Amino acid sequence: MKQFLSVKDATNIDAMIAKGIEYKSNPLKDKNLGAGKRIGLLFMNPSMRTRMSSQIAARNLGMEAFVLNMGTEGWALEFADGAVMNGTTVEHIKDAAPILAGFFDVIALRTFPKLQNRAEDESDVAIKALIKHSGVPVVSLESSTRHPLQSLADLITIKENFKPTATKKRPKVVLTWAPHIKPIPHCVANSFAEWVNAWGEADFVITNPEGYDLSKEYTGKAPVTHNQKEALDGADFVYVKNWSTYGTGGEDYGRILAPHPEWMLMQNSFSSPDTKVMHCLPLRRNVEMSDEVLDSPRSLLTTMGKNRIWSAQAVLSEILKNG
Amino acid sequence: MKQFLSVKDATNIDAMIAKGIEYKSNPLKDKNLGAGKRIGLLFMNPSMRTRMSSQIAARNLGMEAFVLNMGTEGWALEFADGAVMNGTTVEHIKDAAPILAGFFDVIALRTFPKLQNRAEDESDVAIKALIKHSGVPVVSLESSTRHPLQSLADLITIKENFKPTATKKRPKVVLTWAPHIKPIPHCVANSFAEWVNAWGEADFVITNPEGYDLSKEYTGKAPVTHNQKEALDGADFVYVKNWSTYGTGGEDYGRILAPHPEWMLMQNSFSSPDTKVMHCLPLRRNVEMSDEVLDSPRSLLTTMGKNRIWSAQAVLSEILKNG
Amino acid sequence: MKQFLSVKDATNIDAMIAKGIEYKSNPLKDKNLGAGKRIGLLFMNPSMRTRMSSQIAARNLGMEAFVLNMGTEGWALEFADGAVMNGTTVEHIKDAAPILAGFFDVIALRTFPKLQNRAEDESDVAIKALIKHSGVPVVSLESSTRHPLQSLADLITIKENFKPTATKKRPKVVLTWAPHIKPIPHCVANSFAEWVNAWGEADFVITNPEGYDLSKEYTGKAPVTHNQKEALDGADFVYVKNWSTYGTGGEDYGRILAPHPEWMLMQNSFSSPDTKVMHCLPLRRNVEMSDEVLDSPRSLLTTMGKNRIWSAQAVLSEILKNG
Repeated sequence: MKQFLSVKDATNIDAMIAKGIEYKSNPLKDKNLGAGKRIGLLFMNPSMRTRMSSQIAARNLGMEAFVLNMGTEGWALEFADGAVMNGTTVEHIKDAAPILAGFFDVIALRTFPKLQNRAEDESDVAIKALIKHSGVPVVSLESSTRHPLQSLADLITIKENFKPTATKKRPKVVLTWAPHIKPIPHCVANSFAEWVNAWGEADFVITNPEGYDLSKEYTGKAPVTHNQKEALDGADFVYVKNWSTYGTGGEDYGRILAPHPEWMLMQNSFSSPDTKVMHCLPLRRNVEMSDEVLDSPRSLLTTMGKNRIWSAQAVLSEILKNG
Repeated sequence: MKQFLSVKDATNIDAMIAKGIEYKSNPLKDKNLGAGKRIGLLFMNPSMRTRMSSQIAARNLGMEAFVLNMGTEGWALEFADGAVMNGTTVEHIKDAAPILAGFFDVIALRTFPKLQNRAEDESDVAIKALIKHSGVPVVSLESSTRHPLQSLADLITIKENFKPTATKKRPKVVLTWAPHIKPIPHCVANSFAEWVNAWGEADFVITNPEGYDLSKEYTGKAPVTHNQKEALDGADFVYVKNWSTYGTGGEDYGRILAPHPEWMLMQNSFSSPDTKVMHCLPLRRNVEMSDEVLDSPRSLLTTMGKNRIWSAQAVLSEILKNG
Repeated sequence: MKQFLSVKDATNIDAMIAKGIEYKSNPLKDKNLGAGKRIGLLFMNPSMRTRMSSQIAARNLGMEAFVLNMGTEGWALEFADGAVMNGTTVEHIKDAAPILAGFFDVIALRTFPKLQNRAEDESDVAIKALIKHSGVPVVSLESSTRHPLQSLADLITIKENFKPTATKKRPKVVLTWAPHIKPIPHCVANSFAEWVNAWGEADFVITNPEGYDLSKEYTGKAPVTHNQKEALDGADFVYVKNWSTYGTGGEDYGRILAPHPEWMLMQNSFSSPDTKVMHCLPLRRNVEMSDEVLDSPRSLLTTMGKNRIWSAQAVLSEILKNG
């Protein structure tokens, strides 16, 4: 693996899930794999789980991890080719990336979409420019379109928690929109849809209010319904997540259309006591999901969060072996 | 030791002081005690000595230390049970703490009081919620009520610097209020009083202007006088510290009543040339204490600051051994 | 070497250049030299290359590196002797430095000039106070007057890239002013001039618009011309850098006199195809230098950036050996 930007970079999803589960039971199994190697973790946006789990994963593999908060500790980066830099950006990625590549064997970047312009966000300019100009393996810690380390941890969590039976060989997995108080990126939802689709081991349904349909680029052939109740029926795993509108690419992108409090996940949202809930966190309690659900045995949130170490470690080990 | 939040968690104060002094002479004595263990250092507020000394102490014990600046690098945390999170807080401690407990063997937290509401500050909600929801050993790097790592370093400093004589078997220790330009938390003063009381090896007096009496919860049976001159007479160690009003729990909490420049510590504040001064730092020179005092042999400030490593190391080693 | 603040601290420049080049081919040559030693990296201002390369250099020598962002993570420092600290500074360097010296074997500091008052900036108060009050070896990560780690990397880069011929035994090195959109410190230009002069192995010329002459303290006997074209003629290495006015020490210090777009470096600025360009970065593309030049084989910028590791490592190893 030379880069980890989307599910397309995962040649064998089942093997990566298995690798993550293996590291979970034996974290130091490959403790010398990354000896003498350095990873640079660049953050253009806040991060808690990703920040901590990536460092831990790197250390478990014997790598040294170095953190740089771009923009506060470092310099505001420019990404546009040909920019006349007489504004607020201080350094061009063209100049920074090859030097960072001299410092680090692997570079990881977190950057959020601005939610101002769909085409700009979808171009994923920051991480693509980093890949282009660095020449070393690049790992997404969430880009403006996807959050693949999260999605791999999500699949690890589903794999661990689904017990096939004679009548149910595949889990029913639902991605449901939930309310939020401000416009939120599509990355986690995009990435989850893309990974569940590529994995192919689940019956996958997406539900959201009208006007919030995700792009077919990520959701593929997964059925989309605007009836949450119907979608949740018989679900084994419900992935709860807010996202703003995709729109048609104009002013209707990155918007909130209505509060939709009826989409908040409550105990009575679920028909079965066995339905589990998932959320990548951070989460707005009693806005996206009720305390009652979150504090019940339905919640897989802690497991998911802890699994972030193992998805990062699976990805880094692939890169160290084949990068 | 399962947590380190106040002196109540120290089963044997003399042994902890001795342990700190032992580490000072042999920092790497237990260099493998924490091998394979991780500590997460969470900062909700600024910190220099605590930040650096905790990392060094952890490394001296073979632990890996990971720093997270909450709120800038991570997410603004909510602590209230049942909160409808439609405001500025982004993640609930209930959700964050168990995941951090999956990442770290020990979690340490710094948080300051807001000085808006006495009952709220005294409830120490942040660190107590972290303890409740994480399940791993938690160390206070200063909470909204106390600063126990500082107090242990203070006692180490007193222990090292007091030479008992035939006529003076116990040191006279004075905690004196000093002026400041803005309302300051009570944590250091609370904690120092609590530790000196629990230690029981000093004659302890507290002095502050009228209206600034600390809570009996921390000061216990220590005499409180509003006459600084009288209190300082014959003192061996004078702990200098500003704090705002405690008040009765209403609008009179966290206030400055008057500048009180006459409470600044000067060379002529002391009756004896042997009286030593202490301060936890940071310190407002020529507001709290004069240059003349600070730059004289009276000052134990550098020693105290350096001793922060050994108090942290004594606490972490206890947690590693018995946690 | 007990401190590294300017070229005056480098007893043997050629040996330091050679040491850097040696580390470049064998980074772990002295991997145990700093075992058990700690370096504290204090940042009062942003830094990317310096921040990362210093940590890597320290690790290559077996030292532990600890980063502190002063002012955000720590406390705003006061440097003025006798200050009555009733303003915005929270801690005096007199109090902080000796404690940091108890924490670290070597302390490194980055601080920028304020460009408000020439005499104040030239006094280099922050790093000098750190040296005075810490008593341990201090390394400049850029001070208010100089950036010596950069200059050493610059000389390493020139040394590596100049091939003497029968007719050209010494490189022609030009330092040229280039446009910028805001007032920029003189440190890099000062330091480069000082190092090239002290090195003595180049024919050195400085060119800048009228009104931007640097201080003779740094430029020494190097000819200064206001004719950029003439200066660039036949140059082997052109160091491109903006700086604001030095002035006479009054209101005319730290100013921009005019945009001077004609001073931007373009392909047609150079008479020879072999002339190489240098810049310390960060750089304003198409303001200081054109994309055309930067993306051409003239550019040594990536090499220079990578060489920052080796200059830092050469300096730290000197300090560890002789400090």
